[in-house]
Amino acid sequence: MVKVTVHRKAHFNAAHRLYNSEWSDARNATVFGKCANPHYHGHNYELIVAVKGEINPETGFVMDMKILKQLIEVEIEEEFDHKNLNEEVAAFKNLNPTAENIAVIIWNILRKKIATELNLTVTLYETPRNFVVYEGA
Amino acid sequence: MVKVTVHRKAHFNAAHRLYNSEWSDARNATVFGKCANPHYHGHNYELIVAVKGEINPETGFVMDMKILKQLIEVEIEEEFDHKNLNEEVAAFKNLNPTAENIAVIIWNILRKKIATELNLTVTLYETPRNFVVYEGA
Amino acid sequence: MVKVTVHRKAHFNAAHRLYNSEWSDARNATVFGKCANPHYHGHNYELIVAVKGEINPETGFVMDMKILKQLIEVEIEEEFDHKNLNEEVAAFKNLNPTAENIAVIIWNILRKKIATELNLTVTLYETPRNFVVYEGA
Amino acid sequence: MVKVTVHRKAHFNAAHRLYNSEWSDARNATVFGKCANPHYHGHNYELIVAVKGEINPETGFVMDMKILKQLIEVEIEEEFDHKNLNEEVAAFKNLNPTAENIAVIIWNILRKKIATELNLTVTLYETPRNFVVYEGA
Amino acid sequence: MVKVTVHRKAHFNAAHRLYNSEWSDARNATVFGKCANPHYHGHNYELIVAVKGEINPETGFVMDMKILKQLIEVEIEEEFDHKNLNEEVAAFKNLNPTAENIAVIIWNILRKKIATELNLTVTLYETPRNFVVYEGA
Amino acid sequence: MVKVTVHRKAHFNAAHRLYNSEWSDARNATVFGKCANPHYHGHNYELIVAVKGEINPETGFVMDMKILKQLIEVEIEEEFDHKNLNEEVAAFKNLNPTAENIAVIIWNILRKKIATELNLTVTLYETPRNFVVYEGA
Repeated sequence: MVKVTVHRKAHFNAAHRLYNSEWSDARNATVFGKCANPHYHGHNYELIVAVKGEINPETGFVMDMKILKQLIEVEIEEEFDHKNLNEEVAAFKNLNPTAENIAVIIWNILRKKIATELNLTVTLYETPRNFVVYEGA
Repeated sequence: MVKVTVHRKAHFNAAHRLYNSEWSDARNATVFGKCANPHYHGHNYELIVAVKGEINPETGFVMDMKILKQLIEVEIEEEFDHKNLNEEVAAFKNLNPTAENIAVIIWNILRKKIATELNLTVTLYETPRNFVVYEGA
Repeated sequence: MVKVTVHRKAHFNAAHRLYNSEWSDARNATVFGKCANPHYHGHNYELIVAVKGEINPETGFVMDMKILKQLIEVEIEEEFDHKNLNEEVAAFKNLNPTAENIAVIIWNILRKKIATELNLTVTLYETPRNFVVYEGA
Repeated sequence: MVKVTVHRKAHFNAAHRLYNSEWSDARNATVFGKCANPHYHGHNYELIVAVKGEINPETGFVMDMKILKQLIEVEIEEEFDHKNLNEEVAAFKNLNPTAENIAVIIWNILRKKIATELNLTVTLYETPRNFVVYEGA
Repeated sequence: MVKVTVHRKAHFNAAHRLYNSEWSDARNATVFGKCANPHYHGHNYELIVAVKGEINPETGFVMDMKILKQLIEVEIEEEFDHKNLNEEVAAFKNLNPTAENIAVIIWNILRKKIATELNLTVTLYETPRNFVVYEGA
Repeated sequence: MVKVTVHRKAHFNAAHRLYNSEWSDARNATVFGKCANPHYHGHNYELIVAVKGEINPETGFVMDMKILKQLIEVEIEEEFDHKNLNEEVAAFKNLNPTAENIAVIIWNILRKKIATELNLTVTLYETPRNFVVYEGA
């Protein structure tokens, strides 16, 4: 049984701040430093979605990359690109938009849209020097 | 006369929106599209500062890169990193923070701090796919 | 007068072979080596289009990057992407599709579509290790 | 027992088309879109070969990278570089040269040449935005 | 249980030579080639430290990246940067500083400083074309 | 007259130290900091050689890139790769091997080997964050 992982890169630009609404502003500033700036800062998030499964012998595809590309555009880019994650993306109303949490939210969104026999991994670069990987629970 | 250009890369993460305060919101939305989002979005700006001049025969340097690195840290990174450019950087109170204008502002700041016999060029990546270059007036 | 250069990256994937139709096959093989393979080979061409001009004081733009992006899509990507340059792109019917010649053809196409007061430069990566730049005649 | 994975990057440029010879041209066009273009298109394939095993205490190597580099040159680059994969590489006479299938073929070729106690993984970039990984059956 | 891997990139520049002190110079030259040059050569080592664990629900962090960045600076960069690995880093007095061995040494240093419930992986690029990964014994 | 610039990337790994032999060790340490380390450190130098000239209408080439690649291998890589620049490269016996000076030396070597009607520019990355450009006197 030949299993291959296919990867597609995408990207979105967004503003955010790191903030725990149950903490005082002072504690937020202590823990999150300049990332807690109430005026926000932002990033070019680079996203890599990986899907692992068997090669379909008729097409030679694990999953058609055109379909994966469109899925990322509709489900992630349209929802996250040029947005303020704290203010405009419902998932972060009560969840701190760290790279870790953003990766988990993206995985949860895509997991529902990708066939269950395929494994899913999300890699998210917050900067070219910081990135996270989530492979599911 | 042997002139060489030395380059140093740096980076800062910031929020911004594109907005002309003399226009209606509708016109801002028409011209700037999702970049006009009043809740802001953001970028990892990658900056390349280039300094051209003669090689000092004693040191072999056009300019000590340690000094250039520190200059960028103090003059640019401390002012721009993890900031909201529209709200927190004085230069953009009445100036739209497009990549073009940010590059000119950075050039103007650094120009005053670098010896006049050296030429200065600023390259600013707003995303890995969009970048601007300013060589001075 | 403040002039800035804005750059936009794009890409297309194409097949080609290097071939001078006025030469014998033997001479083509001698000069162009494995690049003359009659069955073709191919590249991921990465394109950087640079436009230099004054910043519009109302928009802060030299040129709206959304418009430049669309122009490249319509004029270049639709014509070159997933094509055989020798067989399917008219400009190369009698012109060897070297990186040099492809860059000149792209420049000629875009030059007609960009305002004459703006300077145009085309950079074309044939591979991550080989690239060419054309700034116009 | 200290196991480390060593990686070597290589590259080849090739033409291909996606095509199932048992299907009609219409169905090929529907499924593979512009990738089915009968005149071919092409890519700069970037290859990463990973070998995992114990460090030899005398050399400090898992595997001498010079030998791995030469192996990739002889077994992969000489066979695939500047070739039309559909027309000139025997493995794809009856196999669609998708990135997935190319990675499996490369893995199968290298597997026979690398000591059995070493694990092998092949990563293949078809473009800077699409890539696949094959770790073996 | 939601586990995410966070990664931080860092870098150091160092000189080294490959050399087994129990071998003759001739055997060193045969096995290690130009890497055995007694006058040394050097590299820009690029390091990626990956830490996997549960997300802290209060902070949204697996590990505060500021702390990980500082840990790498103090424990690795200060010890390795602008050094001759063979001559000046105690760990390589009797250990050949191959990429494999350097990665293991870095992992051993960091392992003692990172909470035991977190998994640690070290990736080390010796050049942009050669890199190694060590996940622990 | 259509002039295009063709670029070829190459690389070499070398050890060096920054040092002015007419200065005391103390002054060398003050000016060059850890770069003056007498045990040396090193870099992966990435080199881009650019040649500008008219396109030959028969070949479509400014200069055959295979020939430029071989020229860089013979003249630069064989002389500089896996060497100690201070100790083993004659040009630096009395010249401090800063990035600026290395670029000038490489330009001087290549200038003699490239047709005089072609312009030559050398770009040298000492690290991914520091690089220099020399276009000739």
